[in-house]
Amino acid sequence: MPTDPAALTAALVKCPSVTPEEGGALQLLEATLGAAGFDCTRVDRNGTPNLFARWGAKGAEKTFGFNGHTDVVPVGDEGAWTHPPFSAHLEEGWLYGRGATDMKSGVAAFAAAAMDFVKDTPPDGAIILTITGDEEGPGRDGTIAILDWMEQAGERMDVCIVGEPTCPEVIGDMIKIGRRGSMTAHFEVIGKQGHSAYLHKTLNPMPAVALLAHRLSGHTLDRGTDHFDPSTLSVTTIDTGNPASNVIPARTRMTVNLRFNDLHTGASLTDWLRAEADKVAEETGTRIEMRPHISGEAFLTPPGDLSDLVSGAVAKATNRQPVLSTTGGTSDARFVKSHCPVVEFGLVGHRMHEVDERVWVQDIHDLKRIYTQILTDYFTG
Amino acid sequence: MPTDPAALTAALVKCPSVTPEEGGALQLLEATLGAAGFDCTRVDRNGTPNLFARWGAKGAEKTFGFNGHTDVVPVGDEGAWTHPPFSAHLEEGWLYGRGATDMKSGVAAFAAAAMDFVKDTPPDGAIILTITGDEEGPGRDGTIAILDWMEQAGERMDVCIVGEPTCPEVIGDMIKIGRRGSMTAHFEVIGKQGHSAYLHKTLNPMPAVALLAHRLSGHTLDRGTDHFDPSTLSVTTIDTGNPASNVIPARTRMTVNLRFNDLHTGASLTDWLRAEADKVAEETGTRIEMRPHISGEAFLTPPGDLSDLVSGAVAKATNRQPVLSTTGGTSDARFVKSHCPVVEFGLVGHRMHEVDERVWVQDIHDLKRIYTQILTDYFTG
Repeated sequence: MPTDPAALTAALVKCPSVTPEEGGALQLLEATLGAAGFDCTRVDRNGTPNLFARWGAKGAEKTFGFNGHTDVVPVGDEGAWTHPPFSAHLEEGWLYGRGATDMKSGVAAFAAAAMDFVKDTPPDGAIILTITGDEEGPGRDGTIAILDWMEQAGERMDVCIVGEPTCPEVIGDMIKIGRRGSMTAHFEVIGKQGHSAYLHKTLNPMPAVALLAHRLSGHTLDRGTDHFDPSTLSVTTIDTGNPASNVIPARTRMTVNLRFNDLHTGASLTDWLRAEADKVAEETGTRIEMRPHISGEAFLTPPGDLSDLVSGAVAKATNRQPVLSTTGGTSDARFVKSHCPVVEFGLVGHRMHEVDERVWVQDIHDLKRIYTQILTDYFTG
Repeated sequence: MPTDPAALTAALVKCPSVTPEEGGALQLLEATLGAAGFDCTRVDRNGTPNLFARWGAKGAEKTFGFNGHTDVVPVGDEGAWTHPPFSAHLEEGWLYGRGATDMKSGVAAFAAAAMDFVKDTPPDGAIILTITGDEEGPGRDGTIAILDWMEQAGERMDVCIVGEPTCPEVIGDMIKIGRRGSMTAHFEVIGKQGHSAYLHKTLNPMPAVALLAHRLSGHTLDRGTDHFDPSTLSVTTIDTGNPASNVIPARTRMTVNLRFNDLHTGASLTDWLRAEADKVAEETGTRIEMRPHISGEAFLTPPGDLSDLVSGAVAKATNRQPVLSTTGGTSDARFVKSHCPVVEFGLVGHRMHEVDERVWVQDIHDLKRIYTQILTDYFTG
C-alpha cells in the first residue's frame, strides 16, 4: 500500500517543533524512513537536531537529494487560531496547523515519494534526505552541519531539491532557482534615564529610535534586477520594557530584517546601516550600538539541467509550465548550493508563518506525485 | 515644651508606609494630634488610609489648611542604601530614610507647628490638616477622598498649603503656585502578521509607530507662558515583543507622557493625539487604538493674597525672597485647587525617590518656624 503523505504531514504537525525544539518530528521520520530501508544518522550539532537518511550505496554514481526542515515558527497569538495550532485539524479539504505548509507537508511528500519509489522501482543509485530542525532559527547548526558532516563522511549528492513552498497560486506554477540574501541587524539606542517631569536631566532614546526606524523604513535599496525583485527592509520589533510612564528610559532596542538581491552583500548593507545609525546618533546625541547577523548572501542557480528536469516532471504531472523565480525568503538552498546544483520546488504557501496556517490536502498528494515523477525522470532519463 | 518636628519625622520614617501600606504612620499622627486637641477622623476609601484633623470650630470664619501625605515610594535596591531605609538613621546632621524629604518631614513640620501654635496662641479660627496615605500611587482615593468627605460633612478650608518639598537649593528659595498637568496615552498600532520575505501579504505596524513617535516627539506644543515652562511630550516606551526576525509583527504598543501648562487640557490633548494617530493610520493603512489617562490638569493659583502671605512669612523667617514657580511634577494641589486657593511650600528635596533619601535636620526646624510664622500672619494679619 502506498505511503499516505497527508497522514504523515498530520503526524508531523502534531509534533510541537517550534525552533529549537525537536518536538518528536525527526524521531518520527527516523523511525519511518528506517523501517523503509533508509540508513538514518542523527547529525545533531550544538543541540540542534538534524537527520541524514540514505537509501542505496554510499557514493553511488547517481545520487539524488532532498532537503527540508521540521522546525516551525512560533504560533503567535494562540487564541486567534480557529483550531489549536498543533492539532492538525482537518476541515473541508484543508489540514490546519503551524508547519502545515512550511514545511512539514513538503518533508512528508518527499519522504513518502522516496520510500515508495525505492520499494516499487529500486533505482540504480541512491537517494539522500537531509532534514534539519533549525531552518527558521539561526540555522548555524542545521543544514550546514549536515553538509559539513557529509563532507567528512564522504557522502555527496549530485543534485538536490529543497522542498520549501514555492508556488504562489496553484501547485506546479513556480520553481525557485535562486533566493535573495537575508540579514538582521540589532540596534541598541542609549540615552540617559530620569523623571519625565525633569527632561533637562534626561536624554530620551525614543525619538532617536523612531527617527532611525522612520528613515530605514522609508529608504529604497534598489529597484530589482533581471532575476530578482527589489531588496526590502523591515523593522520587525522595537522593545523598551519601561513600565513607568513617568520615567524616561535609559535605552531601547530595535531589530531590522533585510532581504536583498545580488546588487548587495551582507557587508555592504552592514556598512550602510552603521552609517545611518551614526548619523542619527550624532543628530540626537544618543549612542547607538549595532550587531549585524548575515543569515545568507543572495544566490542564483542559473537555468540549466536541473531546472529542466524539474520543469519537465512538473509539466508531465500537472500540465503546467512552472515559472523560474527568485522571489521569497531565504532557504537552506543557500547552503546546499555550495555542495551541488540545487533548486527549490514545493507547495502553495497558504498562510505561512501566520495564524491559521493550512495546506490543501490534495496538494500534498499531487506534490508526492510530482516528486515521484522527478525521481523517475532522474534515474531513468 | 515645644514639639520636636525632627523627632516626629524620625518616628514617621520608622513606619514602613510604602503605598498602599498605612504602616502605622497615620495612626501615629492621629494619636499625636488627638492628644493636642485636634478632632481626628479617619476617612479611608476603598482601602486607602486618610486622616482629617481639625482644631477649632467647624465652619469657623478663618480656617487654615495643610495637606500632605505619609506614603512613600518603594525603596528600590535596599542593599544599595548606606543605612536601612526605615531606620531614620542620624549622622552628621542628616536624617536618612525613605520619606525623609518626600514628605514625612513636611508633615511633621506642619503638624508640630499647628499643635504648638494652638497651644501657645489659640487663634480665633480653625486649622485643618488633611493627610493621605496615597499620593505616590494612583491617588484615586487619597486627598480627593478627603475633600469629597469634607464637602459632604460641611467642612471647608479658606486657604491651604501643601507641604511637599519645593526648594531647589536652600530652604525658602521657592514656592510653587501651580503645577503642570500630566497625562499618559497608550497606543496600539495594528497591522497584519506574516513572513518578512513576503511583505505584500503583510502590513507592518512598525513604520507606522515610528512615524507617529517621530511626529509626536518633534511637535512643539507651545513655547511656555508667563507662569509656565513649555509643555512637553515624551515617548516613554515602544514594545512589540516579536522574537522572530523573519516575522512581521501583527501589532505594537507605544506609551507617551505629556506634562502640560494651562494652554492645554487633558481633553484638548486627547483630541490632538487622536487626530495625529488617525492621520498616521490613514497614511499607513494600519489601525491605531488609543487609551488616554489624565493624571491631573494643569493649575495655577495666580500670585495674590496667599502667595503674598507665604512669601512674606518666608522672608521674615529666613531673610530670603522665594521665587514663585510652577516647575516640577504633579502633586495633590491639583485636587485642593478646586476647593480653595492653594500653594505649595516645603523643604529642599534631597534624593527624593532615590537611594539614600535624606533630610538636613536643621531644615525641619526651620520649616516648622516658617509654618508657624505663616499661621501667625494669617490669623493676626
